[in-house]
Amino acid sequence: NDTLHDTCKFGTGQRWGSGQTETGMCRLSLTDSDKEARDWFVQKTKSLGCEVTVDAMGNIFAVRPGRREAPPTFAGSHLDTQPRGGRYDGILGVLSGVEMLQVLNDHAIQTEFPVGVVNWTNEEGARFPIIMVASGVWSGRIPLERAHQLQEVGSGKVTMKSELERIGYLGDTPASHESTPMAAHFELHIEQGPILEATGQKVGVVTTAQAYRWFKVEVQGQEAHTGTTPLNNRADAMLLTSYLIAHSHRLATTHNCVATTGTLEISPGSVNTIPGCVSFTLDVRAPADETLDKIESDMKRDFAALAAGEDIGGLRTGGTRGKPLTVAWQTDANTAATRFHPECVDIVRASAVSVTGSDSLVRDMTSGAGHDSVYTNLQCPTSMIFVPSKDGISHNPVEYTSPEDCAIGAEVLLQSVIRYDRL
Amino acid sequence: NDTLHDTCKFGTGQRWGSGQTETGMCRLSLTDSDKEARDWFVQKTKSLGCEVTVDAMGNIFAVRPGRREAPPTFAGSHLDTQPRGGRYDGILGVLSGVEMLQVLNDHAIQTEFPVGVVNWTNEEGARFPIIMVASGVWSGRIPLERAHQLQEVGSGKVTMKSELERIGYLGDTPASHESTPMAAHFELHIEQGPILEATGQKVGVVTTAQAYRWFKVEVQGQEAHTGTTPLNNRADAMLLTSYLIAHSHRLATTHNCVATTGTLEISPGSVNTIPGCVSFTLDVRAPADETLDKIESDMKRDFAALAAGEDIGGLRTGGTRGKPLTVAWQTDANTAATRFHPECVDIVRASAVSVTGSDSLVRDMTSGAGHDSVYTNLQCPTSMIFVPSKDGISHNPVEYTSPEDCAIGAEVLLQSVIRYDRL
Ligand SMILES: NC(=O)NCCC(=O)O
Ligand SMILES: NC(=O)NCCC(=O)O
Repeated sequence: NDTLHDTCKFGTGQRWGSGQTETGMCRLSLTDSDKEARDWFVQKTKSLGCEVTVDAMGNIFAVRPGRREAPPTFAGSHLDTQPRGGRYDGILGVLSGVEMLQVLNDHAIQTEFPVGVVNWTNEEGARFPIIMVASGVWSGRIPLERAHQLQEVGSGKVTMKSELERIGYLGDTPASHESTPMAAHFELHIEQGPILEATGQKVGVVTTAQAYRWFKVEVQGQEAHTGTTPLNNRADAMLLTSYLIAHSHRLATTHNCVATTGTLEISPGSVNTIPGCVSFTLDVRAPADETLDKIESDMKRDFAALAAGEDIGGLRTGGTRGKPLTVAWQTDANTAATRFHPECVDIVRASAVSVTGSDSLVRDMTSGAGHDSVYTNLQCPTSMIFVPSKDGISHNPVEYTSPEDCAIGAEVLLQSVIRYDRL
Repeated sequence: NDTLHDTCKFGTGQRWGSGQTETGMCRLSLTDSDKEARDWFVQKTKSLGCEVTVDAMGNIFAVRPGRREAPPTFAGSHLDTQPRGGRYDGILGVLSGVEMLQVLNDHAIQTEFPVGVVNWTNEEGARFPIIMVASGVWSGRIPLERAHQLQEVGSGKVTMKSELERIGYLGDTPASHESTPMAAHFELHIEQGPILEATGQKVGVVTTAQAYRWFKVEVQGQEAHTGTTPLNNRADAMLLTSYLIAHSHRLATTHNCVATTGTLEISPGSVNTIPGCVSFTLDVRAPADETLDKIESDMKRDFAALAAGEDIGGLRTGGTRGKPLTVAWQTDANTAATRFHPECVDIVRASAVSVTGSDSLVRDMTSGAGHDSVYTNLQCPTSMIFVPSKDGISHNPVEYTSPEDCAIGAEVLLQSVIRYDRL
């Protein structure tokens, strides 16, 4: 816990309380503060006897030798954060991996095969808008070129590749499971939801992860004067956008799923000009791929109808139709639902029961978020460990997991890696 | 027309056609390109024999002496544009004023009293978010301090005062109708709406202008993870904003009025974080003050109810309520409906009939937009002249008024000023 909070000096975020550790984090991927955290990670794991490899996506693999040569069993997660993120999301998983190395050294434990810790690049997708993009490349699911060309959100002036180069983390090793194979991947992460807290349980054994898709929707209307343009002459891109966002929520909730608009740009952005263009993102998630298919096709059908001026679900009731607009879609991410590896899941469950001392403090769970483990699971046995999040809040500076819960998670991680190594 | 298009080299905007003059304008108030246009205006009117005064709001008054001393009769409008504006909005009125000076000189006409041309600062409100702020200060309706402290939209790094100083247009003369009194103010402007084009008429005699209010609405919810936060735990500021925008449109259209959201900021602006805060503008307009009162109070009541989780007009039907949010209001502008001066209106009507040669080519109109004339009308007899806008489009690069219609407008302006001077 001390080490974790100490490393939060790299990219300290918004203060929310008076305590020393009561701030959030702002450590966007491949920024200067991310470089500082990476440099710390490389130096620390080397000092613990690891060999460190950096691949072409800036993923950092720190490997501690075993009795015999073979692909290592990894603990892994990410050191980057949301722009207004907390101190645990991703960071807990990597720091617990480092702690695992320390404990193995302290107790002079020799593993059968190598074990390692991996820091995956840009898991959050907050700066370069594909989440888990670097484990995605490693797994073969995302082309390296596409990842390298990704432009920074907002300004769009720099790319992942140019920033990897700038901070010195464009490695020589190909970003691929073939170059850096893994025996298994275990990821400790905060739950980021309210379930463990509500049930009073301590560890989540993550058996599955939701499917998700990210879309960029562009609405094209016509710029015109707000005061002089009569109702029937308007093609107000922001008004239509408000219908679309409201409707996306309805369609998702029909299936008990979630759709969220987290970014939106409005053009030309003048108080007295009807916006001619609005673009916004939709992050849609569902436990099953078929549900997501249905939500996507319903959204595409209904958005087009709403743009053409039809009334869907009474949204236009009492409003005035105006002129037709157009809606264009782009898919930025599409990841299927995940079922983690049964052997790894069993190992995490056994470790959790052993650490907490009770079956009843442990539960099987679905991950609402995407994680690098979703991609490693495509190439090696993988599973995840969840610990409770206070008030279920994450992606927020006030994100909090108690030191005791962090420690429980780290012990489950250590045990899982050792058990897998023995297996 | 040649001079008008020539001055559009100062702040040329987006190209929409291949012709030399087929671009829009981007000449935001007090930027370098606005300074260039101002410098041109000062030099040109001085070369036409005017005395030029700049006041503390950067308003520029160019006065041509008459036979006798007295407050001048002014033609006036503005040289600033929207960020993606056209070549006529404001510019036509100032340039026709300059043309008036040229014609008076060419024909060696001596007026009874002085006549002048005024360029008002930041009429558009696009850079500093109060429209007609500088004529508002001149009229006594807006405090100088408030105007000087106005921050640039977006970055908010500079103020009106710092930019006035930077470009050398912070004048010594107090910005007040007492320091620069006017006998009358006539403003030629493009209609910015579709009515004259639809009726095939040539000149609008502007008898009244709509009331309008500008609000900034701030929605406060809670940042959280898009994928892990269950529906009932969400306080999604963007989802609520979409209900509010849809509802503002309904409430306004009930009264056949308009409400528009032209700017919107979303925080923290990450695809996989539920927005914790959204702020947006509402520009609401109505022909009568009482109608605007009613729309405003209905909006305030219903926005609060929607934020608290109530369903208004079925907007939440099929959605899930989530946690309550809060909504805060700020009024950025509030201008009552205007009735222009009957004598000036009669003079414009008589001039228009004389120029067009026919009653049937002239119609009385209400202005949908605000204009500096709305403020001058508080302190001196005022009225306005409208000419047709192609497709009713303005605040858009493709804004267009034919050279013939511009010329008709300029002639009506000239005649109106001369008639008033004689009167
Ligand atoms: N765990 C986490 O916050 N990852 C970001 C990817 C996602 O949005 O699910
Ligand atoms: N005429 C004009 O576009 N003025 C801007 C003020 C307004 O928004 O009405």
